[in-house]
Amino acid sequence: MSRWEPNARGRLEQAALELYSERGFEQTTVADIARRAGLTERTFFRHFADKREVLFWGAGALQELLVGAVAAAPESAGPLDAVAVALEATDAVFEERRESVRHRQAVIAANAELQERELIKLASLASAMAGALRRRGVKDPAASLTAEAGMAVFRIAFERWISETSQRDLSQCIRESLDELKAVTAGR
Amino acid sequence: MSRWEPNARGRLEQAALELYSERGFEQTTVADIARRAGLTERTFFRHFADKREVLFWGAGALQELLVGAVAAAPESAGPLDAVAVALEATDAVFEERRESVRHRQAVIAANAELQERELIKLASLASAMAGALRRRGVKDPAASLTAEAGMAVFRIAFERWISETSQRDLSQCIRESLDELKAVTAGR
Repeated sequence: MSRWEPNARGRLEQAALELYSERGFEQTTVADIARRAGLTERTFFRHFADKREVLFWGAGALQELLVGAVAAAPESAGPLDAVAVALEATDAVFEERRESVRHRQAVIAANAELQERELIKLASLASAMAGALRRRGVKDPAASLTAEAGMAVFRIAFERWISETSQRDLSQCIRESLDELKAVTAGR
Repeated sequence: MSRWEPNARGRLEQAALELYSERGFEQTTVADIARRAGLTERTFFRHFADKREVLFWGAGALQELLVGAVAAAPESAGPLDAVAVALEATDAVFEERRESVRHRQAVIAANAELQERELIKLASLASAMAGALRRRGVKDPAASLTAEAGMAVFRIAFERWISETSQRDLSQCIRESLDELKAVTAGR
């Protein structure tokens, strides 16, 4: 018999992030997470396949957002501009979740297996954006290069955004990081 | 009792690549590899920790080469130029091994676990190059961005180099890929 639990997913996610931070990812069980959230393990498994998925369930939606934004960028936008538009669009997803994003990154930084998983996620996102660029008529290798360079920009902007105490928003960090890339490649 | 075996490492590597191509990585055992090479399993384990290491043992030397070349680039070279010099220096390692490199890439492309390992290797190389740039006085995020963009250039140049039938060398593919990156970031 399953009861309706308001915001079960959100409560489970928050409980998991707390426990991963307090005890470490390895030392936390699904039973611990359910208990902390005041829910059952059965409810946990209705929302997540395993404890790792709590950290990665958003990747599919993020990919759709990036791919959709690349596709929707103005026809006149060059490849890098289209990628920049897409990266900045993620601001809407991340900005209000800054604290939980910060917890998540700390958990991942502490665990080699999770770091690997995160690398694979970022590579998939780059690959999906390259596909979206090709559908805009961008040829390879320009499509792959732009998508990969864009993900490097994103990763570095993201790190800066969560690490600093200032109140700059993510899209501002992305624009700065993109300007740095342009400066570096122009040899400035 | 161990006999001295001429070029045991090379023979084991070649036998492994042949078997991984013929049967798949998963379906090949260390015993198979040793038999094909006309050597013992014991000899195999003197050279490689496991069958995966046959594909990745070169990563340490490659990293040293890249880091050394970034450090040795002319003082006047900007960050991207220093990275370009380092990437082109890999030509000396790869050019004469084109056929075995091609086999290796095909084996990796066919196996998700090996692809993950390869991603991690490339991320480590980027991270090592960023460190070498910082030691040249390049600040972050320019150091990380340049190293990551450089690895994207390398990956794409490498794919082109092994996939095509023409006789262009790796350093030429790297220069082309780098020019593409510059064109893309300049909005051309």
